[in-house]
Amino acid sequence: MAAISNGQVIAGPTNPMVTPLLTDLYQFTMAYAYWKAGKHNERAVFDLYFRKNPFGGEYTVFAGLEECIKFIANFKLADDEIDFVRQSLSSSCEEGFYKYLSGVDCSEVEVYAIQEGSVVFPKVPLVRVEGPIAVVQLLETPFLNLINYASLVATNAARHRFVAGESKMLLEFGLRRAQGPDGGIGASRYCYMGGFHATSNVAAGKIFGIPLRGTHSHAFVSSFMSPDEIIDKSLHSSDKRSTCEDFVSLVQTWLSKIQWSNSLNGTFGETNHSELAAFASYALAFPDNFLALVDTYDVMRSGIPNFCAVALALNDLGYKAAGIRLDSGDLAYLSSEARKIFRIIEKEFGVTGFGKTVITASNDLNEETLDALNKQGHEVDAFGIGTHVVTCYAQAALGCVFKLVEINNQPRIKLSEDVTKVSIPCKKRSYRLFGKEGYPLVDIMTGENEPPPKVGERILCRHPFNESKRAYVVPQRVEELMKCFWHGPGGVREDLPPLKDIRERCISQLGKMRPDHMRRLNPTPYKVSVSAKLYDFIHFLWLNEAPVGELQ
Amino acid sequence: MAAISNGQVIAGPTNPMVTPLLTDLYQFTMAYAYWKAGKHNERAVFDLYFRKNPFGGEYTVFAGLEECIKFIANFKLADDEIDFVRQSLSSSCEEGFYKYLSGVDCSEVEVYAIQEGSVVFPKVPLVRVEGPIAVVQLLETPFLNLINYASLVATNAARHRFVAGESKMLLEFGLRRAQGPDGGIGASRYCYMGGFHATSNVAAGKIFGIPLRGTHSHAFVSSFMSPDEIIDKSLHSSDKRSTCEDFVSLVQTWLSKIQWSNSLNGTFGETNHSELAAFASYALAFPDNFLALVDTYDVMRSGIPNFCAVALALNDLGYKAAGIRLDSGDLAYLSSEARKIFRIIEKEFGVTGFGKTVITASNDLNEETLDALNKQGHEVDAFGIGTHVVTCYAQAALGCVFKLVEINNQPRIKLSEDVTKVSIPCKKRSYRLFGKEGYPLVDIMTGENEPPPKVGERILCRHPFNESKRAYVVPQRVEELMKCFWHGPGGVREDLPPLKDIRERCISQLGKMRPDHMRRLNPTPYKVSVSAKLYDFIHFLWLNEAPVGELQ
Repeated sequence: MAAISNGQVIAGPTNPMVTPLLTDLYQFTMAYAYWKAGKHNERAVFDLYFRKNPFGGEYTVFAGLEECIKFIANFKLADDEIDFVRQSLSSSCEEGFYKYLSGVDCSEVEVYAIQEGSVVFPKVPLVRVEGPIAVVQLLETPFLNLINYASLVATNAARHRFVAGESKMLLEFGLRRAQGPDGGIGASRYCYMGGFHATSNVAAGKIFGIPLRGTHSHAFVSSFMSPDEIIDKSLHSSDKRSTCEDFVSLVQTWLSKIQWSNSLNGTFGETNHSELAAFASYALAFPDNFLALVDTYDVMRSGIPNFCAVALALNDLGYKAAGIRLDSGDLAYLSSEARKIFRIIEKEFGVTGFGKTVITASNDLNEETLDALNKQGHEVDAFGIGTHVVTCYAQAALGCVFKLVEINNQPRIKLSEDVTKVSIPCKKRSYRLFGKEGYPLVDIMTGENEPPPKVGERILCRHPFNESKRAYVVPQRVEELMKCFWHGPGGVREDLPPLKDIRERCISQLGKMRPDHMRRLNPTPYKVSVSAKLYDFIHFLWLNEAPVGELQ
Repeated sequence: MAAISNGQVIAGPTNPMVTPLLTDLYQFTMAYAYWKAGKHNERAVFDLYFRKNPFGGEYTVFAGLEECIKFIANFKLADDEIDFVRQSLSSSCEEGFYKYLSGVDCSEVEVYAIQEGSVVFPKVPLVRVEGPIAVVQLLETPFLNLINYASLVATNAARHRFVAGESKMLLEFGLRRAQGPDGGIGASRYCYMGGFHATSNVAAGKIFGIPLRGTHSHAFVSSFMSPDEIIDKSLHSSDKRSTCEDFVSLVQTWLSKIQWSNSLNGTFGETNHSELAAFASYALAFPDNFLALVDTYDVMRSGIPNFCAVALALNDLGYKAAGIRLDSGDLAYLSSEARKIFRIIEKEFGVTGFGKTVITASNDLNEETLDALNKQGHEVDAFGIGTHVVTCYAQAALGCVFKLVEINNQPRIKLSEDVTKVSIPCKKRSYRLFGKEGYPLVDIMTGENEPPPKVGERILCRHPFNESKRAYVVPQRVEELMKCFWHGPGGVREDLPPLKDIRERCISQLGKMRPDHMRRLNPTPYKVSVSAKLYDFIHFLWLNEAPVGELQ
């Protein structure tokens, strides 16, 4: 399935299970009630936003928009889907409704949104959806589903990158622990968007073009018994000019050299044979990409000397070993010890660059353990992060909501005992105002028809609900936040950028935030405001709708 | 895609994105290294198990097996998938490997597993997969992905049901906050399996036949302005014999009756008009299933009287209102107050059964809030649970692992500094031993060829790693835990039962556990053991493989 809009072919959502039925039943019961009341075509405006940044932070990365647009561009109920809705609603529902449903598409829907990969803040609409109320309500659940997790993971990835530091490689290894198949595929996409460099997930690599990483597991190591079982021991040199007929012997020779080395001073004794066989075998298969998992038996007594022996044998043939992976134990200590050995070997055997052999670490890493590693000092170059980044273990859900803000040009407000849950009514515009130093200062929402804030002009920014919180701002730059991403199939709209561009936008925007908003502990909240006019209107409407209490 | 095995047609996995590429890259690099070493057809046995029950509990519900069997029954790499693997591996990899890969299927694979929906415990294999090592490794990541989240959610659902109490209806409302589209679809399936009664997720209803629930949202309520906008106000009586021409007036008449009622004693003043219009409209659409969300403006001052007015008007026409939903505020207090009003109305207006009107509660419910509601006392009949059950907010991942336990009939062990991470070697059988009172007493693992424990015979059960922990047991009943679920396409195997049967097995097994294992606070651990023979062998192998340290 693929729609054409604006000259661009828009395929359906990545997961073919994202159909118009992937929604809550009440969207269909409401659609029927709207239809029955003759209200289904009333023009409604809904805002999609969240109320609180995740992970105790003060920023969020917005993601999931492309999937939403793919969904609406191809939105159409198939006959069997309509039959199922018919079975699911009351038998008293009129047949005319199903006829109406079979004609429903998103040609009358408009979607304005912040660009995917942007840094965003609470209360400011990420997406504004306008259209016939019955249709827009059907979109509520899938939009929330597609955006909530995407934004949560992208934010989580960005936070992990922030703690790890820009110079480190971040690899997403979470598929096996993810919340279902596309919990895994989605995680790979949105981790990459948030700044990760690669994934282990082959399907995600194929679908999204994300770089792939992976070598071998503990099972590979323990599946070998001894070097004797290796049959084909020959290996061409890197330049193909010569062949080493017995690579395994060459490895064993190097192992004794290491064991008897003066500089290593008897550090190494007997190593595990099954591990040595596994490493040699893996090197014979991938001489130009030998990366060994060194903790199956004992990192320092077996894994490191076995790795070095194979790496030095490869070096004799013109290959450069890719590195080691540590998957257990004290990663700060082991990485530092490994680095020392690599440096000694570089010096002792004159192998240039050996000291810089890449060290990858994995094993239940998260923001806290990365931070702890930094504080202890470590020699890890790349981190493999799984469970914590893909399941967002520290906070497994983002609470985006989808609220009616206007119907038939009438503003609507959703009240609540809890003031943070009161919605901001009206079809709105929103802007990001930048200060002298280039940092964003504040986001401001205005009514649809208010004049936009102007560079160099003083503007009053008010907290939407707290009377006493307000500030004048003279912006040095003004950026309107929402752009049109869907205006029916024929409407002019923003193109959907490739994933790499979204990733770059994300990394660049994160890099331009004032550092105190970004720090892990006690970050400063970024300010979100409304114009004076919108403030007054919110409070007028609020008083109008709220019942007056009676104390008894 | 659908394979035929054992006379049963086995369709592919529910999510078509579950393909042989939904795996970690290292499964393919290892497959190449095995192939290159001529080891790829060596017969390997892997155990899939977890090390620790989730949510601080002492039990887990095993789920996800059917998806695994659907996956392997249809396992075959397509040409474009092989091309992608070729692109992803080193260009030096030999073409023969891709030819081999194109012929790979699961005809040589055997899967033994505990039945889906069973109550299971740490260390005991949930699934044992045997086959050519290169093939079985390709299955590792998808099996873990399909089982980890499924088992986690089913367990979470069972725990919520346990706290809510058996008499309560549990509705899964989590799609919008789930971790991606099939985070939502999978959650619906496994919540139902774990004892929930229905879901709001229409797609899950269609795919799995799970009962659906849903009525309307706050947006529906606030989309109405006043009862005047309702055009078609007529409603047939339930028996179709008469028609009320102005249902809205009937509602308004009832509203004044309630407002002026002596027993209600002036409890109610003016209610919100837009809410009244929405309720009347919804009732006109669904007279036989009127369930109203009563907290858009003010539950006691507006929602409840408006609901009662509509419900009483429906009652005049022979319809019984389905109930109310509370989605905010103090659910214990509001449900009790609502119940009082319903009872007064039953009495005052002689509407039999009105006092029992169903009260549904939602709003960020979890085990803790359910427990708190129970302690306070409440009148809720049904709970709508979303975020916490589907994202497993309290613990977002289960840590199932997949470990090599035997290759070429040689037992293998995975060591670790952390004794809880040492694997239990050998191809094994496992049994559940039941005591006099009918409760399961202990699970025991034995070597493949040991005689099974016999009813009435004393057997020594040993903790696998702790020498001093052992006990004699005389089982009154012995149940072998693993059955064959795949033995190549032609092999005899267990049928895949329908979801309802799995759900019943789950509920029945949970009901037969000794209560102290199941309680929420400080539950007693269930015992998991090995036979004396297996214990001795584990420790022999351990000493054999572990390097001897040298203190310096």
